[in-house]
Amino acid sequence: MEIKSFQEFHKKILPEFDKFLTDKLTAEIKQPMMRDSMLYSLNSGGKRVRPMLMLATVYSAGVKYEDLPKYFDIAGAVELIHTYSLIHDDLPEMDNDDYRRGKLTSHKEFGTGPAVLAGDGLLTQAFYWIAKSDLDTSKRMAAVRILSHNAGPMGMVAGQMTDITKEDKKLNIDELTALHKQKTADLISAAITIGASCANHQLSKELVAYAEDVGLAFQLKDDLDDADDGEDADKNTFPNLIGKQATQEKLRNLVNEALNAVLKEEKFDKNLLVSFLEYFKK
Amino acid sequence: MEIKSFQEFHKKILPEFDKFLTDKLTAEIKQPMMRDSMLYSLNSGGKRVRPMLMLATVYSAGVKYEDLPKYFDIAGAVELIHTYSLIHDDLPEMDNDDYRRGKLTSHKEFGTGPAVLAGDGLLTQAFYWIAKSDLDTSKRMAAVRILSHNAGPMGMVAGQMTDITKEDKKLNIDELTALHKQKTADLISAAITIGASCANHQLSKELVAYAEDVGLAFQLKDDLDDADDGEDADKNTFPNLIGKQATQEKLRNLVNEALNAVLKEEKFDKNLLVSFLEYFKK
Repeated sequence: MEIKSFQEFHKKILPEFDKFLTDKLTAEIKQPMMRDSMLYSLNSGGKRVRPMLMLATVYSAGVKYEDLPKYFDIAGAVELIHTYSLIHDDLPEMDNDDYRRGKLTSHKEFGTGPAVLAGDGLLTQAFYWIAKSDLDTSKRMAAVRILSHNAGPMGMVAGQMTDITKEDKKLNIDELTALHKQKTADLISAAITIGASCANHQLSKELVAYAEDVGLAFQLKDDLDDADDGEDADKNTFPNLIGKQATQEKLRNLVNEALNAVLKEEKFDKNLLVSFLEYFKK
Repeated sequence: MEIKSFQEFHKKILPEFDKFLTDKLTAEIKQPMMRDSMLYSLNSGGKRVRPMLMLATVYSAGVKYEDLPKYFDIAGAVELIHTYSLIHDDLPEMDNDDYRRGKLTSHKEFGTGPAVLAGDGLLTQAFYWIAKSDLDTSKRMAAVRILSHNAGPMGMVAGQMTDITKEDKKLNIDELTALHKQKTADLISAAITIGASCANHQLSKELVAYAEDVGLAFQLKDDLDDADDGEDADKNTFPNLIGKQATQEKLRNLVNEALNAVLKEEKFDKNLLVSFLEYFKK
């Protein structure tokens, strides 16, 4: 079976992956509030971009579509980490958001204490899913290493710490880029590099460049969308710092760089990762 | 070099292990608030019982004292997890503690947002330390599996969730035992079973029984000490449920069971794990 675009891939595999996530967590987690709060946030309408990018990378590196469920545990781990980060980011003393995608945030639905623990549970379970996957030990260990590095205090968590402690300070463009790289790009690029590692694909500097460019582009698109909606006017974002037009141009440049990088990728089906870049077009 | 008791072992190896923890985190974590808050809680006077039990198990299984530093990354990971759990447990919407061992708790020192992130950072970095250890991949993967299982939403975090959501409900003895097993015993028994796995020691049911008995004994001793200090009078604890005398007897029985179990352990130097049980004597 040949799949021509990320959009086709996403649409085709998502229902099976969604079912996998819910079935697995439901079977594993016995504590009622733990299970309910973890499932609530895991199934709150996210597009599963990170695990889909991971699975698309696995497929692009030559793994057959039919074999992709073997990689669901690790793709699921990436989604668990992303979900935990949203729960903790929404907390009262962080971004203090009551709603996310039209649903009450975890701490509004379950209380702040349970929301902290739901996040802790998702974060820890991610590593359990990797450990229990059927993939080779060396691939699983690569996934543990990349994910813990990029999602932890050398990556995503450090970015969030900078974000909440520098809220009242105007960052310059280098500081803001560094913040976005950690806070958003590191987990997205981890999804892609874990996918390549798990598929035995030699990780090239081109694929790493694609992953990092896509990760940063994500934050720029998000900030542009929020600016269009009149949100985040007082936050450290590129539209607030350099204006919307300059941010749009920066986004176009990043997407072009990502495209040029992935086109140089050898022994790789480029259709999915190239077509994924349409996500960033208006 | 032969070491006769856990107490001698602890005293001898602790300074080197403490230095290792601080040096490693300081070298790795660049974000200033992240590094400061992680180090603050890691160095707040804990006795390092869990990593010491892990290293004592490694030694008891036949690894030379001089080779123990190879296991510091993984012992350190256990301590990072324990430290994160204390930070999150102390949060205002959890146990709401302002002080721990005479020092301000993390959220009082750094604020609630940074304290949540310091915990997230410690938890994630634990898996990074395991992934980057020099031990065989299969041993590292066993450590990831045991730790994520026992410290996550199938273990410690589930126990904490039960604890904070059942605070107003009086638990019966089975419910309280199940709560303590998850909340406290699972991480302590993980330290021992990880130690055995990393030292290539075949994990016997006797050693698992020792680990679980010691874990539960820990919580009982803690509750008895708090009851002596007049604390926790309205909490779900064994002294409140069955009285101090019956709790002391339960503790003695657990320690005896642990002793009988470990004495049956084959191909194992029993001095350290037997002498560790003195910890539970008044």
